[in-house]
Amino acid sequence: MKSFAIDVGGTKIYSAVIDEKGNIISEIEKYSTPKDLEEIKTTFKNIISAHENEVDVIAFATAGAVNNENTKVISSTGNLVEGYRTIEFEKLSNKKVFVENDANAAAWAEHIIGASKGMPNSVMITLGTGVGGGIILNNELFKGKSGAAGEMHFKMYPDKRRKCTCGSWDCFEAYASGTGLKKTAEELSKNPDITTYDVIDGLKSNDKHMTEIFNKWQNDILTGLIGLANLFDPDCIVLSGSMAEFTDTKYLETEINSQIVTQPTKVLKATAGNYAGMIGAALLAMGVKQ
Amino acid sequence: MKSFAIDVGGTKIYSAVIDEKGNIISEIEKYSTPKDLEEIKTTFKNIISAHENEVDVIAFATAGAVNNENTKVISSTGNLVEGYRTIEFEKLSNKKVFVENDANAAAWAEHIIGASKGMPNSVMITLGTGVGGGIILNNELFKGKSGAAGEMHFKMYPDKRRKCTCGSWDCFEAYASGTGLKKTAEELSKNPDITTYDVIDGLKSNDKHMTEIFNKWQNDILTGLIGLANLFDPDCIVLSGSMAEFTDTKYLETEINSQIVTQPTKVLKATAGNYAGMIGAALLAMGVKQ
Repeated sequence: MKSFAIDVGGTKIYSAVIDEKGNIISEIEKYSTPKDLEEIKTTFKNIISAHENEVDVIAFATAGAVNNENTKVISSTGNLVEGYRTIEFEKLSNKKVFVENDANAAAWAEHIIGASKGMPNSVMITLGTGVGGGIILNNELFKGKSGAAGEMHFKMYPDKRRKCTCGSWDCFEAYASGTGLKKTAEELSKNPDITTYDVIDGLKSNDKHMTEIFNKWQNDILTGLIGLANLFDPDCIVLSGSMAEFTDTKYLETEINSQIVTQPTKVLKATAGNYAGMIGAALLAMGVKQ
Repeated sequence: MKSFAIDVGGTKIYSAVIDEKGNIISEIEKYSTPKDLEEIKTTFKNIISAHENEVDVIAFATAGAVNNENTKVISSTGNLVEGYRTIEFEKLSNKKVFVENDANAAAWAEHIIGASKGMPNSVMITLGTGVGGGIILNNELFKGKSGAAGEMHFKMYPDKRRKCTCGSWDCFEAYASGTGLKKTAEELSKNPDITTYDVIDGLKSNDKHMTEIFNKWQNDILTGLIGLANLFDPDCIVLSGSMAEFTDTKYLETEINSQIVTQPTKVLKATAGNYAGMIGAALLAMGVKQ
């Protein structure tokens, strides 16, 4: 079997043909994400029509929560065009179309070909501009009643300190994301112009203040991971996304296992690569299991 | 089928015969929990031997996390005798012996005959002296890799304010429990002798200060429930235990649903009664599903 997979992000769309082993077996195509609903639908149709005859199924990895039938987006993010939820993905192709949330799809790629391969229970967290989550339980992608499970919007404080993009306050995402690191850096340095690059550069050159800022951010992540380890009792926690490479997974793993009441877990960096979302959606669409 | 069920708490042991509908069909027997390992084993054997011929299976609901094979306790609580983990439950009877954590068992009772009946995904929280948790996903009790999933030890603050009984800091249990309410009351009233009864009595008589203390406690619970609703996307959250009766579930449900990014959930009070742990363990032992 082969799947044509499309990854829809806020600024870019990627596509490629993927086989049952999770190999990308075509050129990767790249497009800007249209900001108009009709235009994005037309773009999807055009991308698909050029490849649908080569494959068995079309797979979308997209921002936003996706329903349990894998046919539509049920809660869209501010990054995507208004009305994105109204798109009827199955009408975009003559082939079967399968849709999954991008973080869920990436978690599945890690489960099948990446860091959590061979483990039935894992929690994957993407640390990027925002924070995404995908949870695998008993070798199945965990979706909840409506498909939206695994949202990393649990609170770090009960008393309204930092607004979250979701509209509520003090979610894990507001602290553990790249945006969260910038905010933490602003607060600790009293410099509104400080960037995440400043912090990472400072960390690399052993700057004391920048290392303190980084450690505050990493310890906020630790706080969240302890809770997830106690709730899910997973075989491992996988960290992915652009900010994950800077984390000290050995430190996180040791600290987590010294504080949880459940059995020890592993903390691993993702290994399925930058196209894990696309690959995972394709593997899910083709029904590939561990 | 019939099960002889035994609920083992820190101070009391209860037992009864239970049928496949979850009905208690014998007298409920009550014992003090021995504080010596050999004595507790002897007590278990004596209780069981008096009833094992009447039933098909022996079911234990016990404090502590229980392994995925439902044969032994893997992490005991301070409330039970040292060495409790070494008990080989299957050797206590000639009949099959099934063991489950008491909160997990109570969650199963709610799922089969109680508040979450008919719903595939639910999170149950017991608000008592401590806090217990039991999670049902896709009509199955969720146990995690080692059986210890559903521990309500996620953090309310990242910066070490209140010690938790688990040895870590600022867990949900340390705020949402009855013990947590007393601690919150002590902090807000500057009175080390204040009791949870003072707060509840004050709440009932509309005392302004006691109502403020109660509301702080309830809003800490709200903070935790928002995170659980985003992580698990459950059909409902069930509140049980001695402290649950004072909570305002309509308020909690409205607030949760105004703040989550997943689909709306229900907040319900438990209805399976005081012996839910015993009933749920019996139903699990007999393989009764929704």
